[in-house]
Amino acid sequence: MDYKFTESIASLAPSAIREILKYSSVPGMISFAAGNPSPEAFPIKDIERITQNILQKNPITALQYSITEGYGPLRDTMKQYMKEKWNSFGENDELIITSGAQQVMDLMTKAFVEKGDTIICEKPTFIGSLNAFRSYGANLVGVEIDDDGMNIDSLEKALNENRNAKFIYTIPNFQNPSGVTMSLEKRKAIYALAKKYGVIILEDNPYGEIRFAGKDIQTIKSLDTDGLVVYAGSFSKVLSPGMRVGYAIGDKRIIAKLTVCKQTSDVHTTALSQMITDEFMKTVDFEKHLQNIRAIYRKKANLMMDLMDEYFGDKITYNKVEGGLFIWCKLPKQVDMMDFCTKAVKDKKVALVPGTAFLINENEECHEFRTNYSTPTEQQLIEGMQKLGELVKEI
Amino acid sequence: MDYKFTESIASLAPSAIREILKYSSVPGMISFAAGNPSPEAFPIKDIERITQNILQKNPITALQYSITEGYGPLRDTMKQYMKEKWNSFGENDELIITSGAQQVMDLMTKAFVEKGDTIICEKPTFIGSLNAFRSYGANLVGVEIDDDGMNIDSLEKALNENRNAKFIYTIPNFQNPSGVTMSLEKRKAIYALAKKYGVIILEDNPYGEIRFAGKDIQTIKSLDTDGLVVYAGSFSKVLSPGMRVGYAIGDKRIIAKLTVCKQTSDVHTTALSQMITDEFMKTVDFEKHLQNIRAIYRKKANLMMDLMDEYFGDKITYNKVEGGLFIWCKLPKQVDMMDFCTKAVKDKKVALVPGTAFLINENEECHEFRTNYSTPTEQQLIEGMQKLGELVKEI
Repeated sequence: MDYKFTESIASLAPSAIREILKYSSVPGMISFAAGNPSPEAFPIKDIERITQNILQKNPITALQYSITEGYGPLRDTMKQYMKEKWNSFGENDELIITSGAQQVMDLMTKAFVEKGDTIICEKPTFIGSLNAFRSYGANLVGVEIDDDGMNIDSLEKALNENRNAKFIYTIPNFQNPSGVTMSLEKRKAIYALAKKYGVIILEDNPYGEIRFAGKDIQTIKSLDTDGLVVYAGSFSKVLSPGMRVGYAIGDKRIIAKLTVCKQTSDVHTTALSQMITDEFMKTVDFEKHLQNIRAIYRKKANLMMDLMDEYFGDKITYNKVEGGLFIWCKLPKQVDMMDFCTKAVKDKKVALVPGTAFLINENEECHEFRTNYSTPTEQQLIEGMQKLGELVKEI
Repeated sequence: MDYKFTESIASLAPSAIREILKYSSVPGMISFAAGNPSPEAFPIKDIERITQNILQKNPITALQYSITEGYGPLRDTMKQYMKEKWNSFGENDELIITSGAQQVMDLMTKAFVEKGDTIICEKPTFIGSLNAFRSYGANLVGVEIDDDGMNIDSLEKALNENRNAKFIYTIPNFQNPSGVTMSLEKRKAIYALAKKYGVIILEDNPYGEIRFAGKDIQTIKSLDTDGLVVYAGSFSKVLSPGMRVGYAIGDKRIIAKLTVCKQTSDVHTTALSQMITDEFMKTVDFEKHLQNIRAIYRKKANLMMDLMDEYFGDKITYNKVEGGLFIWCKLPKQVDMMDFCTKAVKDKKVALVPGTAFLINENEECHEFRTNYSTPTEQQLIEGMQKLGELVKEI
């Protein structure tokens, strides 16, 4: 039988990048291509203790159907946390627990975006979000990123030209893949534009808590007095991605609709994961845990940047990072980026992600690639960068 | 700010039934309205042992990102199980692990149904699936159910009149809410019609393994030689709904597309849940476990049916059940069903689900209500039925 998929889904084809990433599983491959948290950052003993405790004391709650909004105690914990630490839970807001932050992108698009409606994104941006938007047939419009975040003139131009824009999607902290953090000034400017044009801001903040240098900047959500911002949070980078626990904060009316959408998607997020997360927040010193994680990433990021200085010289430039998981590197214009990445993976057994993966149009000119320092070991960082150094000599 | 949701989502409003179900949390309420498995049916000790073992021996796999298709060992286990026990995994098939079977309905609709395309459903049918279909703007067409499953003439008429039908949705075993099991003859007839009209069958089988009387009937999937059937399986009723583990089996090309869709929805299903499920299937005698569950439900179902015979007399009729979780009851035509259910919950503190909840058009004439015997205790079954008996005397 010939199957006829919907137009939006039929065009969600595996990309050229996936072809390159296939080599990642070759024995001896060093992967700088992943986006996984460091295995050393998992609080294994705490999770083991907490899980045993839950299954002994409260097994039925962990195993039975739960409500779509999320496990009550965890919702309360996160409302309080986000209010006290980040001033990001307002009096008209609600919070829903989701199956990872990825589900927030899915539900927001489902709730707001008719086929052909516009979503304004940073350019480049996270491929997982782009594909969620694409899966609903959204019209994607990219806005360039300066050193301090989205270019405001380009954003206003995009809003002007796309009156069917439903939301502005941004990763304000340690943006994936560019590593850029948006300045407070720009956060205010974007908020003002969103208000002017009556467009929602979808603030995706998976990396905000893993800042290992510099100072925290307040969230866009904390500026929100008009119910304009939906904030997506995640435990994937600070606790465990395998547990699939994220959350969304926004105006009550929006969260109510996201709840209806979630009910038809997966009924509720795994109950045990939610209970483990809540107990972790309640019984472990979360700030100290974050400090441990930040120390791991600081060390690895600094190591990779030192190695880049040593092996890339002035041939490849990169953005210094103060947090997150990624470094965005730029090749000279005369070097073919895809060719460089292909040689890296085939000849040097080092996997990188070609920058085109993060573009709305993968065929656009692009000289960047993304590296990750959280997944590889220090030894792998050293070896991999040495091998990339050999390749750099050839260009 | 005024929010503008998509047309399909804006119309997914809380229904009249939800208003009634709100009373369910009133103290002293006996709920026959839920669809939860019996807490006694959870193998708590096994899950506790298995979980501890996983977190001690293989914590990183449980906590790290996993692949979208699902945990490899569990996929292999289920392919073998479904092939050997149910002959329901063909040589062109693949299997994807989903976040409950609800996600299969979501992904199938996303992959196949453009706004306005038709899905043919049993009438009545599971509200969770109806809402998943509605959330993508599907045109829903209902087909009456006879004592042995979908009416074949009505189905052919529906297929004839709706040439944009993308799939036929059926729950062939212990259908929710009607309790009806489709005969083998009808399964063959539906398959033949699907083939004739080039339409996929979405076979939803959450209750198939909890047959406590009568004989198993082969799945529609086992008849599939043309890649026409997508089978949705679930661990919610046989292990734990809180873990959110389901799966879909279908032609490789379909499962590949569902995988792309799932990646944008929630990346992957909770890793720990998948590992627990796999270890349960491998280290526990699953058939014996099913026998235990069936014994629990047989006892409760028989008790509820005996009580119905006693208290309903010939005023309310019901379908005898051989499995599943629900009994479908029919009031005399002159009794207002919604009024009866409202009185039950308000005056007698017994929650029922009005049959209209399971209709495509909730305003259609309906004299049925659904009861559930798996969630209440035996004591609650007795008390609740006594109270309903008082109400029955008044009609």
